[in-house]
Amino acid sequence: MFEIIDLKTIDEVFYAIQDMVVRGAPLIGVTAAYGMYFALLGYNGNNPDLFLNECSEYLKSSRPTAVNLAFAVDKLVDIVRCVKQNKVEIALEYANQLKRNETEFCSKIGDAGLLLIQEIYNIKKSPVNILTHCNAGWLACIDWGTATAPIYKANLAGIPVHVWVDETRPRNQGARLTAFELGEEGIPHTIITDNAGGHLMQHGLVDLVIVGSDRTTIAGDVANKIGTYLKALAAFDNNIPFYAALPSSSIDWEIEDGIAHIPIEERNPDEVSSIEGWGSKGLTSVRLIPHKSKVANYGFDVTPSRLITGLITERGICKANKESILSLFPEKKMV
Amino acid sequence: MFEIIDLKTIDEVFYAIQDMVVRGAPLIGVTAAYGMYFALLGYNGNNPDLFLNECSEYLKSSRPTAVNLAFAVDKLVDIVRCVKQNKVEIALEYANQLKRNETEFCSKIGDAGLLLIQEIYNIKKSPVNILTHCNAGWLACIDWGTATAPIYKANLAGIPVHVWVDETRPRNQGARLTAFELGEEGIPHTIITDNAGGHLMQHGLVDLVIVGSDRTTIAGDVANKIGTYLKALAAFDNNIPFYAALPSSSIDWEIEDGIAHIPIEERNPDEVSSIEGWGSKGLTSVRLIPHKSKVANYGFDVTPSRLITGLITERGICKANKESILSLFPEKKMV
Repeated sequence: MFEIIDLKTIDEVFYAIQDMVVRGAPLIGVTAAYGMYFALLGYNGNNPDLFLNECSEYLKSSRPTAVNLAFAVDKLVDIVRCVKQNKVEIALEYANQLKRNETEFCSKIGDAGLLLIQEIYNIKKSPVNILTHCNAGWLACIDWGTATAPIYKANLAGIPVHVWVDETRPRNQGARLTAFELGEEGIPHTIITDNAGGHLMQHGLVDLVIVGSDRTTIAGDVANKIGTYLKALAAFDNNIPFYAALPSSSIDWEIEDGIAHIPIEERNPDEVSSIEGWGSKGLTSVRLIPHKSKVANYGFDVTPSRLITGLITERGICKANKESILSLFPEKKMV
Repeated sequence: MFEIIDLKTIDEVFYAIQDMVVRGAPLIGVTAAYGMYFALLGYNGNNPDLFLNECSEYLKSSRPTAVNLAFAVDKLVDIVRCVKQNKVEIALEYANQLKRNETEFCSKIGDAGLLLIQEIYNIKKSPVNILTHCNAGWLACIDWGTATAPIYKANLAGIPVHVWVDETRPRNQGARLTAFELGEEGIPHTIITDNAGGHLMQHGLVDLVIVGSDRTTIAGDVANKIGTYLKALAAFDNNIPFYAALPSSSIDWEIEDGIAHIPIEERNPDEVSSIEGWGSKGLTSVRLIPHKSKVANYGFDVTPSRLITGLITERGICKANKESILSLFPEKKMV
């Protein structure tokens, strides 16, 4: 079931982000920028700058972990504040530009990551097994995706790949979204439980891990969907390359220690205690746990840079450390 | 919903083990021994020893990973073969004895593990947070359980504990069974996704990990429910003690390298692609994945001994290595 939903107000944008109707760091940022534009479009008071500030605080509260959201709305506020007129048009132009940028960045991430897959294929001469967690595909990033972009580019280049898709509890973005995307692209893939990746890696069944990132610190720590850290540990333990794919809009240039300083969203426990699936009468939700039991639902975890082989960005691949990141983004040295 | 099911034939026992109506290494072994007794009870041919051999091969094929199953039926065949008459009674007596032993062993595992929890509590002076994976409780072990026995003993001794319960996809034995048991015992607990444990450990929210074992090699490698290895990696990375609790009936005295030599059961993909839960009309099953997608379902993984702080056995705690294991079970040196 594939459905297109129109969002037309800032409130619709807020709830679409909070409830994960739109999710994925780049898509959240772009959607939020359009949300700011919608707000401004309907505004007829006499202090649009103050109003935009309020809107930006409101939208930023919808999801705390992804840095793209704050980046997009703060930047829009800055730009619009600097102009005296045509604020609405300029907000729209910014949102459009951000959308074009993110799409182009994802394509470039794909080009960079393709080289990694090509390298493995050149040695292995048989399908490259790539494990991914959650969904960092075109459903998360307008087009191409981040983690999936190298896979799609490899597929287009005729390199045989097979993808191990972590189901990614509790929201099952892997089983529902990544598997759907890969199916649509005709790419061989196998869905596994989040528990299975370590076993596969121990037995030589994974050549490469690529995940997305909701926020990457300047020191290279990566916040991504809960469970990513466990896969990074297993990859490290089995000498398997582990990459995070991200546009620079996901880099938080102001913090180093991700475990200490990236806020980890705690989400509704109902996401764990119940699950939605296709029953005999269409989409339906079932309860998975005893009524007496409590539930905790952390949305993300942080993978320390020491476990990460590299970061795949729109400007190429770098190591997960400050020096290497800044060598690709030298203009950020002044931040 | 708690239901008691009577098993009366070897076929009923076979399917109960294969479909996980009974699960947990000790309980599988004891149930299989009773299955052999049922078979013998209904046998009126003239070659009971040959018949028992066939029955033992049949039952052993129901679940390949847990060593207790092979141990129990092979031992019963050996014993019954050695006597000329009263074979049926002797088979029953063996099954009864095995049941008594396993229950007593679990209680002793609880006593040994209690000391670990007590030690942490003495230093911490606040509730001890224990993470467990899957269900190694009384629903798996006749009484007490293996991994849960120290928790139950600590609770009885008045030591405050809180248990993080991994839901344990795909069959959700944590969310369904361990949470149920802990609720019945009045022990504070919180259900989490299998993805969450690493994050909790990074943030000091786990003091101790205790899991069960389906098969432990003489070198201390532990096969347990898929995903256990990932938790062991996270515990190791965060300096958190990681113990496997197991009766010696789960030790395979003949193999050292668990990753190379313990057979890992691949189970029905439907266990991953669909899930059972409580809907508006009682227990119901929903499909979680697109129809186009393939699924793999590995039942267990192997945690290498280097990640394991110790083994909690009915004779006390030892390190996860051959020398330390044999110091508790010196009679096995001759095996």
